[in-house]
Amino acid sequence: MNELELIQLLTRSLPTNDSVIVGAGDDCAVVDLKIPGHWLLFKTDAVVEGVHFTREDPPQQIGHKSLARCLSDIAAMAGTPTAALITLALPREFEPGFVEGIYAGISALARRHQVAIAGGETTTNPERILISVSLIGTVASEKCVLRSGSKAGDAIFVSGELGGSRAGKHLVFEPRLAEARWLAEHFHVHAMIDISDGLASDLRHLLRASGLGAELRAEAVPISRAARLQAKHESSRKPPLLAALSDGEDFELLFTVASKDAVRVLDGWKEQFPKLRLTCLGKITPEPGLKIRDKTGVRSLTAHGYIHFQES
Amino acid sequence: MNELELIQLLTRSLPTNDSVIVGAGDDCAVVDLKIPGHWLLFKTDAVVEGVHFTREDPPQQIGHKSLARCLSDIAAMAGTPTAALITLALPREFEPGFVEGIYAGISALARRHQVAIAGGETTTNPERILISVSLIGTVASEKCVLRSGSKAGDAIFVSGELGGSRAGKHLVFEPRLAEARWLAEHFHVHAMIDISDGLASDLRHLLRASGLGAELRAEAVPISRAARLQAKHESSRKPPLLAALSDGEDFELLFTVASKDAVRVLDGWKEQFPKLRLTCLGKITPEPGLKIRDKTGVRSLTAHGYIHFQES
Repeated sequence: MNELELIQLLTRSLPTNDSVIVGAGDDCAVVDLKIPGHWLLFKTDAVVEGVHFTREDPPQQIGHKSLARCLSDIAAMAGTPTAALITLALPREFEPGFVEGIYAGISALARRHQVAIAGGETTTNPERILISVSLIGTVASEKCVLRSGSKAGDAIFVSGELGGSRAGKHLVFEPRLAEARWLAEHFHVHAMIDISDGLASDLRHLLRASGLGAELRAEAVPISRAARLQAKHESSRKPPLLAALSDGEDFELLFTVASKDAVRVLDGWKEQFPKLRLTCLGKITPEPGLKIRDKTGVRSLTAHGYIHFQES
Repeated sequence: MNELELIQLLTRSLPTNDSVIVGAGDDCAVVDLKIPGHWLLFKTDAVVEGVHFTREDPPQQIGHKSLARCLSDIAAMAGTPTAALITLALPREFEPGFVEGIYAGISALARRHQVAIAGGETTTNPERILISVSLIGTVASEKCVLRSGSKAGDAIFVSGELGGSRAGKHLVFEPRLAEARWLAEHFHVHAMIDISDGLASDLRHLLRASGLGAELRAEAVPISRAARLQAKHESSRKPPLLAALSDGEDFELLFTVASKDAVRVLDGWKEQFPKLRLTCLGKITPEPGLKIRDKTGVRSLTAHGYIHFQES
């Protein structure tokens, strides 16, 4: 049983109540606590030594990553983070300086986004460090962007460049909070998700939630320098386009707007965030499935997670 | 460096913001999100295989315990839980039925208290199962009970019976949510905490937060049948009174009220919760320190966590 099948099994019939607007299956849970005009966003995310970081990585960057992943999920709903709790599971023999470094990285990022670290706990995990971050935030209820709102014909956008994040970006990326809030304030963003599993996987999540399909243009996919360098120097590496489509942990924003708004979005973004690339990748289609178009024609992108794909 | 020293180091200068009413150092974080008349309670707690449970324990009970611990912290502030997120860190080769059992235990308890399971995630922890629960709840702002409100002369109460929880109670205990809300609705509860580390340790947390001391009466301490049986049958076991003072994971309510209210609290409780014992343990003193009185006189209870104590 893989992770996806397990999650489907476990989330089949979860207890709910009247306060829950969106439960499992979006970037954050959305809860109505009667905050005038606002909803609560609620998210948890864990990083594990040997899976998401190693003991050789700088502890400040490990801390940064642990909080930044959660902030990126708040961004994907166009929300504003408020407060976090940090669960630190540590081997019995831990190095205090390393743990202090993790906290320094968390605190620096929290300060930059006015997020309070309101507590948490330490516990024992004998073999490896595990950091779980819980985060609450808020969003104006009429500005909250879900995965499920895409419409056929929408233009699909992605911020930044994709692929090869594990070469370094995954430890230092900046969550796109300001960008997402700006988008939701100025445009009718139909659907949004942050790219954690990889462009193709996360676009599939969005399409499944919206009940639609998509067609991407291969030459539009913004391939990162890291993905190109890796392909050049590591013979075992994926081709750059495949890396951009399937590598995880880019934590960029993937969103859709009505095609009539596409040019205004691009122009406004360029003025507001001149240093951060924004790319129109393709369009939402009424028929389900994810397709990619290149010089040779249109092909299906198959599988979730790993994409079986041959560059032409 | 022990856990307490580490927490003191890490919580020295955490980022905060205007929304935080109470940060690290109480049972829950308390956050003002402009919910009319209410505050948000925010808590996270993790249980780890080999530390808080074993693979031989029934999975439903493991799930129950993981959520019940968090609910007990909401109870300690006299709050009402709303929604939880579940982080499940699993070895790569997990048994689906066992994981389903954990979720069944979580869900059954959540339903009983109208708590939504609003999502979460699964991740990898190769050597052992770790379950981290994040919980939000609310409390009427004028009814919220902190650890810090005790006053000299207060009567100290504890619900239930103490000691020997690891013989079974730690997996099946019922969080005292209804009892705590009833107390806060009918009396002016000055301070409250749930007993997770042990009576003496948790009373010390409350005293430190309140800047006061306490004197307990040894013969009043409600010793559980489990603690007595363990002392009788296991020669290496602590004496029963010591077990009741120092064993953890009882998850009973420890609280203080003005001495003039003590009899009304006892009488009202007996009528409202006839099956659950409530005991007046002693009183809050103006001078710091935790003392215990028995037939031979008054002695100091020393140390945090493990108590060096000889029964007379």
